[in-house]
Amino acid sequence: MNADEFREFGRAAIDLIADYVENIRDRDVLPSVEPGYLLKTLPDNAPEEPEEWKDILKDFDQSILPGITHWHSPQFHAFYPTGVSYASIVGSILSDGLAVIGFSWIASPACTELEVVTMNWLGKLMGLPEEFLNCSSGPGGGVIQGSASEATLVGLLVAKDKTVRRLLKENPDLDEDELKPKLVAYTSDQCNSSVEKAGRLGSMKMRLLKADADGKLRGDTLKNAFEEDKAQGLIPCYVIANLGTTGTCAFDPLYELGPICNEQNVWLHVDAAYAGAVFICPEYRHLMRGVEFCDSFVVNAHKWMLVNFDLSAMWVKNAYDMVRAFDVQRIYLDDVKTETKIPDYRHWQMPLGRRFRALKFWTVMRIYGAEGLRKHIRTQIELALYFAKLVRSDDRFIVEPEPSMALVCFRLKGGDNITKKLLSNLTEKKKVFMVAGTHRDRYVARFVVCSRLTTKEDVDYSWSRIKEETDLVCNDKIHAKAQIPALEQIVPRELCEKSK
Amino acid sequence: MNADEFREFGRAAIDLIADYVENIRDRDVLPSVEPGYLLKTLPDNAPEEPEEWKDILKDFDQSILPGITHWHSPQFHAFYPTGVSYASIVGSILSDGLAVIGFSWIASPACTELEVVTMNWLGKLMGLPEEFLNCSSGPGGGVIQGSASEATLVGLLVAKDKTVRRLLKENPDLDEDELKPKLVAYTSDQCNSSVEKAGRLGSMKMRLLKADADGKLRGDTLKNAFEEDKAQGLIPCYVIANLGTTGTCAFDPLYELGPICNEQNVWLHVDAAYAGAVFICPEYRHLMRGVEFCDSFVVNAHKWMLVNFDLSAMWVKNAYDMVRAFDVQRIYLDDVKTETKIPDYRHWQMPLGRRFRALKFWTVMRIYGAEGLRKHIRTQIELALYFAKLVRSDDRFIVEPEPSMALVCFRLKGGDNITKKLLSNLTEKKKVFMVAGTHRDRYVARFVVCSRLTTKEDVDYSWSRIKEETDLVCNDKIHAKAQIPALEQIVPRELCEKSK
Repeated sequence: MNADEFREFGRAAIDLIADYVENIRDRDVLPSVEPGYLLKTLPDNAPEEPEEWKDILKDFDQSILPGITHWHSPQFHAFYPTGVSYASIVGSILSDGLAVIGFSWIASPACTELEVVTMNWLGKLMGLPEEFLNCSSGPGGGVIQGSASEATLVGLLVAKDKTVRRLLKENPDLDEDELKPKLVAYTSDQCNSSVEKAGRLGSMKMRLLKADADGKLRGDTLKNAFEEDKAQGLIPCYVIANLGTTGTCAFDPLYELGPICNEQNVWLHVDAAYAGAVFICPEYRHLMRGVEFCDSFVVNAHKWMLVNFDLSAMWVKNAYDMVRAFDVQRIYLDDVKTETKIPDYRHWQMPLGRRFRALKFWTVMRIYGAEGLRKHIRTQIELALYFAKLVRSDDRFIVEPEPSMALVCFRLKGGDNITKKLLSNLTEKKKVFMVAGTHRDRYVARFVVCSRLTTKEDVDYSWSRIKEETDLVCNDKIHAKAQIPALEQIVPRELCEKSK
Repeated sequence: MNADEFREFGRAAIDLIADYVENIRDRDVLPSVEPGYLLKTLPDNAPEEPEEWKDILKDFDQSILPGITHWHSPQFHAFYPTGVSYASIVGSILSDGLAVIGFSWIASPACTELEVVTMNWLGKLMGLPEEFLNCSSGPGGGVIQGSASEATLVGLLVAKDKTVRRLLKENPDLDEDELKPKLVAYTSDQCNSSVEKAGRLGSMKMRLLKADADGKLRGDTLKNAFEEDKAQGLIPCYVIANLGTTGTCAFDPLYELGPICNEQNVWLHVDAAYAGAVFICPEYRHLMRGVEFCDSFVVNAHKWMLVNFDLSAMWVKNAYDMVRAFDVQRIYLDDVKTETKIPDYRHWQMPLGRRFRALKFWTVMRIYGAEGLRKHIRTQIELALYFAKLVRSDDRFIVEPEPSMALVCFRLKGGDNITKKLLSNLTEKKKVFMVAGTHRDRYVARFVVCSRLTTKEDVDYSWSRIKEETDLVCNDKIHAKAQIPALEQIVPRELCEKSK
């Protein structure tokens, strides 16, 4: 394919995507295909000869699009949003065009430095304490990771390395192999499944502590868990606090957890994957009170900040801890400042290779401006509140807990089964997509304003479909347990909220 | 930004990239900026108001491009190639436009199924044993990981989980916490730094066994290491064989290592990150003789197969082992077949989220066809052999070891210092970029044909610059050690070949 064909193919793809986005309301949010539909359609072998680009776009339209769940449909209210914007797509084109691998400064100076710049920009926009920023005088800094899952695991591995080094320094007679199995990580039972997985991957016991009735992990609970474990000879090492739990978007009180962790030399990581974006709006910053006690913090710019996956923004207060844990050279860093000011980012992450992801973030921040990003967040929260009002206006429903950010949890009065039936029927009809959660042991439907395209009219439409289905479900006397399809077969359990 | 602006902005970006690629020879391969150049240029804060897209492209041209190391310049001969092609860029546009997250089948059926299809296509093209393929009757299958680093770590974690489960089943009185520190991984001292890092991240001892004079890890060496460790109460668990070592592109004999691993229940992972691509050409398949003994295999389609980073193709013989290790639900899988035929890929990888990466691979395979991909590989190998011939025609040089794939290692006669000086001067002049390696304790320059644009004339040009610099270096009597700039300051040590 030569440059002229690329120009044609590229333009056609841009047009196709623009048309797709602008007409996304014409499609059902969920696809109507059976498992294996594509395996049956496509050839068993790669083509031997080159094919025409027009055929690829034709097959994209005819075979791929019918098998897509439209995450950016205004009727997609499941999980949390994943980012997309025209600006981000173009930023990716620029990044893909250069196709550099930024594992060290010389591998492409701009790749490293634009990452430093944009992580500083975002950290400041969110009002993070200065010590997390690369532009501070200390060893802190920001880095782009692939996902919050990865950031949680990175934090765990660094905490493990740091704790073992500290204990061996305090007592050189200790055996590293005996220490490691004693380390313990803590989070709440409201955490994302990826947090639990980090414990598994990083070989560290992970305690899922009971959150309070509002879904928050409280200081006393954490303190007691530390004490119990220490009494058994175990060593508290790592705590993952949630700012915005997966299920109900609850915020753990960092001001309670932080001092306890600091006192006991325990690494405190903040998983603010979705809700961290709200801190660009000053009116929400009270929800991260105590952030100054934390060691690391992650927010997915690829969730609510209009940036395409993957772009997890992670900050650490002391990047030296990270470099010590990840640098296989075990070089002695005489000058920590140099390392954190112009970082060799390969020592800040698990893999060696890395793309020039800062370009898409830079493009998004400039095309929207801080004001544009704030407006996006505020608009989506307003739309969620509007939805909550609609639900509350119908006395068959209960909204519970209070809406948080762009999430509204609600249920039908009566047993859990009727709400289950409602969700299951809606999913089957493919017009509105929500997933389930639990709150205070009750089954709830989670309605998240996800798509950047969502308008008040779209919320009205989703609500009208929900009401319509509710009429059917409520009129249908037969909603016995036996007849309700297992929703878990459609949406795996760990992607919904975990039971408390 | 509305759809019409996106069409304009997108087209302008496409044109910019086409112009960049077509005129890449006008630029020095290495940039002429000082550390911190961009930090000084860009604003300290994100813009408050939205900006014009034209300003972004202007800044891209004026501030970003000068800080780029041009990995796709035909004078880039460092490391190994990283993939790019027009086809891949357009594939990414399609993927970014849909912006789905494919953690489960329902999250976008096409995302999961196209990955199955393309991994089958590639596995067949490479002549992998059928049991690695999803389309076989067994529990094998392919999955896209982010990098070979990640695949090596995934293999390690699965091997650990599997070994511990087996040992506990054999002897339920054993203690998991006591077993884990006894597990040992093995690879050769020629491995990529990411392999060593996997040991660190996965908390497993990693033995870097001495390769033979040709850079290969031999069966006897491995067997002896197993015996020594077992005599000390340790447990061999995981072996990483290299098909194409980082330094000299040597191929470990799988037919020697494989039977030993199989006999002793040790997981054998193959890191064929770069060189695995050659197996699409049948004439090279003898180099993977014994692959049927392996448990997992990774090749980076984003290296030598014209696909943009990231796309690491990984196959496992038994995906059930993977799901058991990574699924935090610990669900009991009654039907392994269902799980591996239509996989929930989140259980095949470390993070929860994943992009629709199969789209770019599908686009590349169709635009090039199998024949086009083979031609790319063969052409680059021919160009490397042509370069070796040029070097051999100049009796100041020694080519050693024999060129392997598109890599030629060579050195100046005389001590290591003169070759070091040559490399360092070339890097300083920014016209040709190579990095160093070692072979049989001698310092060598590594010349890799990397760019897909490289022609015979480009190789002639690189060679003319190398000769020109050699004239200067050889005439310059002062090449004492003291005056040679430390190349490690420019290219970090672990990115070059490690000393044997």
